[in-house]
Amino acid sequence: MNQHLLARKGLVLVMLIDALLVALPADRVVRDPDVVARYQHDEAEWAPYAAPLAVVRPRTTLEVQAVVRACLEHDTAVVTRGAGTGLSGGANATDGCVVLALEGMTAIKEIDPLERYAVVEPGVVNDHLRAACAEHGLWYPPDPASAPWSTIGGNVATNAGGLCCVKYGVTRDYVLGMQIVTGTGELVRLGRKTAKGVAGYDLAGLMVGSEGTLGVITEITVKLRPLQDPQRTVAGYFDSIVDAGRAVSAVAAAGLTPSALELVDKQCLIAVDAWKKMGLSVEANVVLLGRIDTAGVIGDQEAEKMLSCFDEAGATWSAVSTDQEEADALFAARRLAYPAMERLGPVLTEDVCVPKRAVPEMLARIEQIGIAHETTIANIAHAGDGNLHPLLITPRDDEPARARAQAAFAEIIDAALELGGTVTGEHGVGLLKMEGLAQELDPVVLDMHRSVKNALDPHGILNPGKVFS
Amino acid sequence: MNQHLLARKGLVLVMLIDALLVALPADRVVRDPDVVARYQHDEAEWAPYAAPLAVVRPRTTLEVQAVVRACLEHDTAVVTRGAGTGLSGGANATDGCVVLALEGMTAIKEIDPLERYAVVEPGVVNDHLRAACAEHGLWYPPDPASAPWSTIGGNVATNAGGLCCVKYGVTRDYVLGMQIVTGTGELVRLGRKTAKGVAGYDLAGLMVGSEGTLGVITEITVKLRPLQDPQRTVAGYFDSIVDAGRAVSAVAAAGLTPSALELVDKQCLIAVDAWKKMGLSVEANVVLLGRIDTAGVIGDQEAEKMLSCFDEAGATWSAVSTDQEEADALFAARRLAYPAMERLGPVLTEDVCVPKRAVPEMLARIEQIGIAHETTIANIAHAGDGNLHPLLITPRDDEPARARAQAAFAEIIDAALELGGTVTGEHGVGLLKMEGLAQELDPVVLDMHRSVKNALDPHGILNPGKVFS
Repeated sequence: MNQHLLARKGLVLVMLIDALLVALPADRVVRDPDVVARYQHDEAEWAPYAAPLAVVRPRTTLEVQAVVRACLEHDTAVVTRGAGTGLSGGANATDGCVVLALEGMTAIKEIDPLERYAVVEPGVVNDHLRAACAEHGLWYPPDPASAPWSTIGGNVATNAGGLCCVKYGVTRDYVLGMQIVTGTGELVRLGRKTAKGVAGYDLAGLMVGSEGTLGVITEITVKLRPLQDPQRTVAGYFDSIVDAGRAVSAVAAAGLTPSALELVDKQCLIAVDAWKKMGLSVEANVVLLGRIDTAGVIGDQEAEKMLSCFDEAGATWSAVSTDQEEADALFAARRLAYPAMERLGPVLTEDVCVPKRAVPEMLARIEQIGIAHETTIANIAHAGDGNLHPLLITPRDDEPARARAQAAFAEIIDAALELGGTVTGEHGVGLLKMEGLAQELDPVVLDMHRSVKNALDPHGILNPGKVFS
Repeated sequence: MNQHLLARKGLVLVMLIDALLVALPADRVVRDPDVVARYQHDEAEWAPYAAPLAVVRPRTTLEVQAVVRACLEHDTAVVTRGAGTGLSGGANATDGCVVLALEGMTAIKEIDPLERYAVVEPGVVNDHLRAACAEHGLWYPPDPASAPWSTIGGNVATNAGGLCCVKYGVTRDYVLGMQIVTGTGELVRLGRKTAKGVAGYDLAGLMVGSEGTLGVITEITVKLRPLQDPQRTVAGYFDSIVDAGRAVSAVAAAGLTPSALELVDKQCLIAVDAWKKMGLSVEANVVLLGRIDTAGVIGDQEAEKMLSCFDEAGATWSAVSTDQEEADALFAARRLAYPAMERLGPVLTEDVCVPKRAVPEMLARIEQIGIAHETTIANIAHAGDGNLHPLLITPRDDEPARARAQAAFAEIIDAALELGGTVTGEHGVGLLKMEGLAQELDPVVLDMHRSVKNALDPHGILNPGKVFS
């Protein structure tokens, strides 16, 4: 960087920090390098990041607005984040940005059992909302594996999925309305609280999954359902991942709608067990975990039908679990698979989603790609909706291995697109999938993205350089 | 209009028609005044309309694109329509526009039972799609009362609701992806076919409910569900509409999720019976029709619980119907209420949606507003989700009555907003709710609408002058 630019950056910094300190209590503006470092990136270890000018931790909507306005005035990028559990680098700091950390905005403002909605601040942790709803006999379904840590704001920004999506849909399906600070620093409400509403464009829906590039979400109204009925768990062991994939297609072909249908392979189970000492059985190469929450005898029949699908696809062992504790342990292991694998080395996480009938073929291709590029690939998957998370693991500080993993990553994306899939089922584009997005979308559609971005963030301060260039 | 403008209009007309005739077979370009007149407006009798230059009835996507390109070249507005069953004037012709009628694009291109989606052209009639899906054991839930006539394209453009929304959501919840011709005449695909996907902004979602102002939809991929389980019908008679409203709130408070909860008043029943001679009982002032599709004994229990809610709110008679034919007749009458009332005189249709607990209060206010403005108001309602359709009926050619009805219409909107509702639950803004939209939305949000419109329709040719000014 030349002297002139450096000087300019220094000046912006001083003026911006002054503006932030006028707008917010001093303890909300963080410059301590050790603390700032913790906010530099999300969980996408492989995505680039840079040093922010400052981290700001507002507690109120007005403070958020003040931050956006200060950044507008000083032409500084705003990178908004929740808990930083994202897996695509969407919340990674860019050089000279302000990181707007909303984790301190944790109020559950309202839970209305009759209208079946909750109004929350963006920093509310997913599991906390679920627990609060349960006290009213209500359920907030979207359950990303990160639910114990990730925030509703982050879930909305990335349109997070989860385990129950296969029956109950994704975050998008539960967002009724929101309050945002716009790219021009205005505070507005989008969407509604009523059961239905078509007053104007669905701008609230547009914000969902826009990864902080179109507005800063300061409050969210989510739709709730009555508490889920008890679930039966159907477990199946398979020798090969392709057999497991065939079981998944068979479940769809049988017309079943499981409330979860997860795949986890031996490598993940071993890693979880080594970490958490859960005493997991790891006899199988691949485990499928299905759930059925249909009430009564019909649910029992559906569980048996799922079992048959597993068996016919070649399960070496299968059972409808009558032991809730054991079933919960298996699902807990599934949720812990990602952090467990992270302990073994840098993990490059895939998130392709393919048609259900293409699941066996896609799993076979992932296996072949791993072999071809000498890359260890473990697999977890929301298999029931074709959303696969191959985890590419490399030894630390092994550059050639890293390069091979990246080549494998790109090939997995190619394969998913070839099979009619998408480059990202639920993690978002962030930085890791920008190239993939450009592959997936028509250039005209990418231009439409740019036009919408310019329309709503005319000064280009909201998470610039993410999603598309 | 001055001479110069008239001359210019004449010239545009000649050149445009020439361009259309180059692009399309001659029989697709309609200029016969009698035929053109049939395409001048939708079912919103009270909304203004004007004469189009021509009506174009393309049969293929490329023909649609050719029409949009010709209109772009000649700076001519494109008003897209399906069956013209809209109730807000969204498809009304504007002076000198081209009406793009997609009713001839009726192919159901694909129904995939395993992936559970259908790919259709925009002119497919809702009921035809439902019937085709049923042959595969599948169900397309959105069921506007106009389902026997309205098209999927129109349903998507208006984000149509219907009777089953109270449990199964609206059109928006079933749109996975689409092909559109953009405001710049390009043909692109938005959205996806996979179960999940977050690759970029949700532009497919943005198109839903945008009333032809952001793109022309030429193909739609909709999500399907397994066929609905058999329903029990719970009917309740009430002396007063407010009692019926209290029953609706009670159903919500009891934690029930009916598969339909419709309200229809005596005036509507009498009008339907006079027209269709269905032999309907019209002993009650207001009838509530609930449905429960939960399977098995649990469903039976839910139906009994709904019955108790009706009784406790003051039903004069109530029963769980064991006679499917009788139940179907009641629902058929509900669906016919709107056209039956139209036979009695010009109908101004309301479409407010309020919180469920505000339903009794809103119904009381509608009654009071009718009395205050000496306007006959009949009521049908998707009561279970607070979506009310008061029908304001005036004698033909009675200008003072018309003015009173318009004043009542405005007051109903005020009341709905005051109670936390929206000006349009499912019909869309079109022309009739433009003022209401401006009341409901923050001016900044209206500006966001304008920015998005300019971004995606930079030449302003797509249904200009609708939704917002």
